[in-house]
Amino acid sequence: MKEGSVRILAVDVGTTHLKAGCLDRTGRLHRLTVRELPMVHDESGRAEHDPEVLWDRLVDAVREAVGEEAGTVRWMVLSAYQLSLLPVDAAGRPLMGIMTLLDTRPQETFPELLARMDVEAIYRRTGCPPLFQYPLAKLEWIRVRRPEIFREARWFLGVKDYLLLRLFGKPLTEPSLATATQLLDVRTLRWDPEILELVELTEDRLPEVVPPETRLGRLRPEAADALGLPPEVEGIAGVYDGGAVGLGLGAAAPGIGAINLGTTAMVRVIADRPVLDASPRMRLQTYYLAGGRWFPGGAINNAGGVLRWLRDSLLGLGYREQDALAESTGRPTGLLFLPFLTGERYPGIGHLASGVIFGLQAHHGRGHVIRAAMEGVAFALRLILEALQENGLSPARLRVGGGGARSALWMRILASVLRTSVEVPEVLEPALTGSAALVRVAIGELPDLTAAAKEITVRTYEPVAEWIPIYEAQFERFQALMGDLEAAFRRQREALDVQSC
Amino acid sequence: MKEGSVRILAVDVGTTHLKAGCLDRTGRLHRLTVRELPMVHDESGRAEHDPEVLWDRLVDAVREAVGEEAGTVRWMVLSAYQLSLLPVDAAGRPLMGIMTLLDTRPQETFPELLARMDVEAIYRRTGCPPLFQYPLAKLEWIRVRRPEIFREARWFLGVKDYLLLRLFGKPLTEPSLATATQLLDVRTLRWDPEILELVELTEDRLPEVVPPETRLGRLRPEAADALGLPPEVEGIAGVYDGGAVGLGLGAAAPGIGAINLGTTAMVRVIADRPVLDASPRMRLQTYYLAGGRWFPGGAINNAGGVLRWLRDSLLGLGYREQDALAESTGRPTGLLFLPFLTGERYPGIGHLASGVIFGLQAHHGRGHVIRAAMEGVAFALRLILEALQENGLSPARLRVGGGGARSALWMRILASVLRTSVEVPEVLEPALTGSAALVRVAIGELPDLTAAAKEITVRTYEPVAEWIPIYEAQFERFQALMGDLEAAFRRQREALDVQSC
Repeated sequence: MKEGSVRILAVDVGTTHLKAGCLDRTGRLHRLTVRELPMVHDESGRAEHDPEVLWDRLVDAVREAVGEEAGTVRWMVLSAYQLSLLPVDAAGRPLMGIMTLLDTRPQETFPELLARMDVEAIYRRTGCPPLFQYPLAKLEWIRVRRPEIFREARWFLGVKDYLLLRLFGKPLTEPSLATATQLLDVRTLRWDPEILELVELTEDRLPEVVPPETRLGRLRPEAADALGLPPEVEGIAGVYDGGAVGLGLGAAAPGIGAINLGTTAMVRVIADRPVLDASPRMRLQTYYLAGGRWFPGGAINNAGGVLRWLRDSLLGLGYREQDALAESTGRPTGLLFLPFLTGERYPGIGHLASGVIFGLQAHHGRGHVIRAAMEGVAFALRLILEALQENGLSPARLRVGGGGARSALWMRILASVLRTSVEVPEVLEPALTGSAALVRVAIGELPDLTAAAKEITVRTYEPVAEWIPIYEAQFERFQALMGDLEAAFRRQREALDVQSC
Repeated sequence: MKEGSVRILAVDVGTTHLKAGCLDRTGRLHRLTVRELPMVHDESGRAEHDPEVLWDRLVDAVREAVGEEAGTVRWMVLSAYQLSLLPVDAAGRPLMGIMTLLDTRPQETFPELLARMDVEAIYRRTGCPPLFQYPLAKLEWIRVRRPEIFREARWFLGVKDYLLLRLFGKPLTEPSLATATQLLDVRTLRWDPEILELVELTEDRLPEVVPPETRLGRLRPEAADALGLPPEVEGIAGVYDGGAVGLGLGAAAPGIGAINLGTTAMVRVIADRPVLDASPRMRLQTYYLAGGRWFPGGAINNAGGVLRWLRDSLLGLGYREQDALAESTGRPTGLLFLPFLTGERYPGIGHLASGVIFGLQAHHGRGHVIRAAMEGVAFALRLILEALQENGLSPARLRVGGGGARSALWMRILASVLRTSVEVPEVLEPALTGSAALVRVAIGELPDLTAAAKEITVRTYEPVAEWIPIYEAQFERFQALMGDLEAAFRRQREALDVQSC
């Protein structure tokens, strides 16, 4: 087989799209296929992926991605979104749809569960603050509202676990996903029997946890057939989607923080132990990554999605036009944009929060509002970075990936708000290249993940000196405004609840 | 002369435009001319009208408005904006530009004046809360910063007083303007010597106050020549612009409240005595109107101007498209829009306030934001109406004029927020027809102002039953949000002051 030919098939399962890519042994992406994933919604708050539709899209995407090069594929690896749950029977057949992170039904049974939880202790053990999005709360909902499914289920799986079972025939998971269930001890990477008891579960109904570098053996013959792949293709356990992005950005190298600025955003940095927020605010969620490292940090719901909302719902302009208008303001606008259009993850008020544009004056225009949105997202990311720094994790450099990294203005704003240079790697699909890097380490083509990180070339954006003091003051005002509006957020939520009755 | 031929020339001097119209003895508008008035701005906060330019535009507009019918004009009447000040010498020659209501230079010397003022007592005597826009504060600024002009000035006039002097040769004013100087006792309609002393002024340097119905005698021959009018044209003192609008809307009839919904807006209702706000918030300003009646109420800076800002600065759509988008939302949006784009007149925080859009969610779009702006203006008007009601003035009906009255949606929103039907008179230029009504009363063609009010036909908009409870709750949230944001407004103002240094 010639140098550079395709060896690795990497698949990334997101909430809206599934991507399949073929990469060679040097980690270069050859071909990419994207398929939309339909979300099944209803008025109850359901937000599910249909397992059969998901499988069909996977088959479809993989077949197109590998094309004539199918014969050269040797390794297959998956990344997927966290916080999903799917009960399956003893034969691995789904008993319902896959509950995604957007499913709000567990809110119904969450207060009762919360009352039984020792929130602080569970945060210390699992790295997960009390949020209804975690599989723990989903299990409670199924137990209470779908008792027949709860009884019948042989295993409770995540979306990726389900695909691995169907591809490789084994009910297993890996710790980057399992640390986001609120069921796993983040220190020992073992299921926590005491927490399982809260929802009347035993460990034998959960998949085995194996390290992300684990070689899973060959594809099941039926799966290889369906995908049009050679029978000798072997699986690697892999990591969750944000972890794969982190690896793709080079965050495995020491001192490099990873920011993914997509529709949502995250700030994470690797650590050799599970780092938790020492403050009672529980601002950090700590997941495992790979190679004996954890990946503490945080995420926000509203990042590039806010710019998309401006484009699609308010201004009707393209991203480039928006960027040019924001650029034309020349300097910070004095406006504050709290970008919480879809609520946020802050304990206490996050689920009540909504978007706010504060400080409009007659001379402000579209460019000011757009720029204020970029600034607001940068401030929300700084809140996470400060939580990391307060807990002893101060990345020397920051790498940014995702669609937002295409805006040079946004990168200069981010650098100025974070008071450090930010690097944008020249990587097109970091989730896929990150998964491929993990494969290359697992099969011995690279000594470790740090070596993969060193291959990445970056473009650097520096802070703008005169913006720094302005943003320091503006960040203070941003935080103060969040506090000022707590009661107003509560009142709005109550009003909307009344109106929708 | 045949019935219905032109007899009355009415001129309205606004801050941005001057209008001249010819009306017949039945009050019907025959011809209308509009001229733009340039505002002289500079970085010091100066916002002046040039007296010579103003005179030229007046001449120009009148000549075009009367046209071939010049010979039929018998009466001339002026309305003009309040809060202006112009020092003139003994020959009536201006010593500087006309300081308009938009001039912010008096802010410089206002704190010192305020320290010498017994604010509460002066409000009780003058009907004017402590605002730097009043001529009292303008006098203080001239006294301190332009002492040579202060010494040289023979008279201190308002913009309309200056035009009356030039047209009829007499330094006089009328009480609808004089009650907006903060120098006049609103109860006796005489200059207040104690307040004049605050700025080292004596009564003989102010124009004589004559009732609005006063016949001023004939035009000066030079003025008649310049305007191309017959020498026998006589003047009537007239009222200020908002008062003329009130008369044009029929607010002289008992129990009818007048709302003018232009770039700015006002809510006023006639009363047979000067009604002041019994609460320390001084929410009402009480001016005199005519016919032995006062015109208490309040005004807001941000009304139709906010819809214009959305059109010109944010959305780039026409008013009709905006209206259709807002209409398409179908119901109250849950959004709150504090429309204070140019600050507001609320004592305490008004000068610090700015615009806020609160409660944005991903499903909101342009129509929601536009509708929320309309709702926000309606809430700001309700604050004034409530102040009137709390002080014993509860108009049975409300009449709305100005550009905003063209939007049927806005009228339905206003009716629902105010919980009463609102009437939109079919009057094109209420300021001109209102001034003409005053002339017709002054010359005995009508028995009184109530008779003029009865001529007006209206279109009625009813509240929407299901919106009323929603708006009740939303109005509570609007007021609570204003309180929540007081500190944030202060912080923003300080930040902007620092940035602009």
